[in-house]
Amino acid sequence: MLDPQNTLYLELATGRVVIELAPLFAPKHAANIKALVREKYFDGLAFLRSQDNYVVQWGDPHADARAEDKDHPRSVGNAQRTLKAEFTIPISKDLPFTRLPDVDGYAPEVGFSADFWSARDTKKNEAWLAHCYGALGVGRDLDADSGGGTELYVVIGNAPRHLDRNITLAGRVVQGMELLSVLPRGTGPLGFYEKPEQRVPIKSIRIAADLPAAERTNLEVLRTDTPTFAALVESRRNRHDDWFKVPAGYVELCNVPIPVRAVPAPATGK
Amino acid sequence: MLDPQNTLYLELATGRVVIELAPLFAPKHAANIKALVREKYFDGLAFLRSQDNYVVQWGDPHADARAEDKDHPRSVGNAQRTLKAEFTIPISKDLPFTRLPDVDGYAPEVGFSADFWSARDTKKNEAWLAHCYGALGVGRDLDADSGGGTELYVVIGNAPRHLDRNITLAGRVVQGMELLSVLPRGTGPLGFYEKPEQRVPIKSIRIAADLPAAERTNLEVLRTDTPTFAALVESRRNRHDDWFKVPAGYVELCNVPIPVRAVPAPATGK
Repeated sequence: MLDPQNTLYLELATGRVVIELAPLFAPKHAANIKALVREKYFDGLAFLRSQDNYVVQWGDPHADARAEDKDHPRSVGNAQRTLKAEFTIPISKDLPFTRLPDVDGYAPEVGFSADFWSARDTKKNEAWLAHCYGALGVGRDLDADSGGGTELYVVIGNAPRHLDRNITLAGRVVQGMELLSVLPRGTGPLGFYEKPEQRVPIKSIRIAADLPAAERTNLEVLRTDTPTFAALVESRRNRHDDWFKVPAGYVELCNVPIPVRAVPAPATGK
Repeated sequence: MLDPQNTLYLELATGRVVIELAPLFAPKHAANIKALVREKYFDGLAFLRSQDNYVVQWGDPHADARAEDKDHPRSVGNAQRTLKAEFTIPISKDLPFTRLPDVDGYAPEVGFSADFWSARDTKKNEAWLAHCYGALGVGRDLDADSGGGTELYVVIGNAPRHLDRNITLAGRVVQGMELLSVLPRGTGPLGFYEKPEQRVPIKSIRIAADLPAAERTNLEVLRTDTPTFAALVESRRNRHDDWFKVPAGYVELCNVPIPVRAVPAPATGK
């Protein structure tokens, strides 16, 4: 079961997007995003950007307004606007890692850390989350430490792995990607919407644990450290059904799905 | 300039999608698709499938109907329903290829052949088009030779390179991907639409050369065998602007854009 304390529900007019935060890789950012959620910082904000084959991004449309403007930036309360970057973390024995047999040019080793696509470099003693489809990232400006979680993006295109180690990833979408990937593309630079009415409103973001059990989406992610998952990986490396004529003998990290399924609500004790 | 004889305009209610056919790699399929277009085979058909992070696909909703049904399959006239597969072609000196300095696990060599992402295996003397974002493929059934162009798909997600050499690619979308990538996802198996009214109608498909000059979209693709393109590739392998902190030193084939731009209509001689 997804940990309700690290699961977000992003509510759009079209439905619910379920996000799993990754405190293992970005503890400060995950905590800050939860603080922003609990302050209802995101409620009523909007998707500001939809760039084809790249990312959708949401935040405060008035983030860059000056204090004297009518539409001044939304206050962040006790949460932080910026945090020290969490681009990589040290490798430790507490960090799970199931290595993919294949490699790619973006990292010495790639694989799976709990519910996430990840990569690492043992020589540098660094591990990081990989920019696969659905990855949740923390927008920032030029300075590495200029992001904090008030602007978040989700990858909707071919894995932009060159962003790995350059920006903090804080989680991933585990259900509802099809609601984000179809947001009309913005026509401004970087896919920003040019007119306010084009923005896609966010009804609310909530932490699953803060909702009554009846309002939660109960999901289970296949464990990536199991024989079942290893068999799935192998079936993706070499397709052996009748349709495939030439098995690839390889699979790129982001082409391995990490299966998620709906499960009955957990029994509540009496 | 795109060759108007190998350029298709797929017209949707939302606008025009420009497709470049690849007769270098799939001569029979490109010719057959053009024959289908000239018979107006596709006019009034529809997108039947939109699978998140994978493909959109169009064709005849009644392709599987039996002859006695009211909605029988549309006739193909003088075009072919099926063709011998063109999964790979022999390497020849007439086939341009600018190799990418980087490799991946899906092919011994990857790079660019004229306007297309491609791959090859010199030991097997085979070259093929790569399933990058925007690739145009020819749907088929189990048999390798069961496709012909009446059902076509476009890649809208993370490059499904495991499809390379398993299905005929016949071209790519060079403009208008943002109209295809936002098609609402189908909720049936493989992303097929479950209700007829969910299908997205195709107004028409035309060959650019068959339209008056004034109705054409004039596009120019950056030549991939030029120093300008080599510099672009290098800039993608190692980002050196102020935003990037860790250059990747690598770029995955499908993360290299092949730039396209609008150009003035060519002068018409008198």
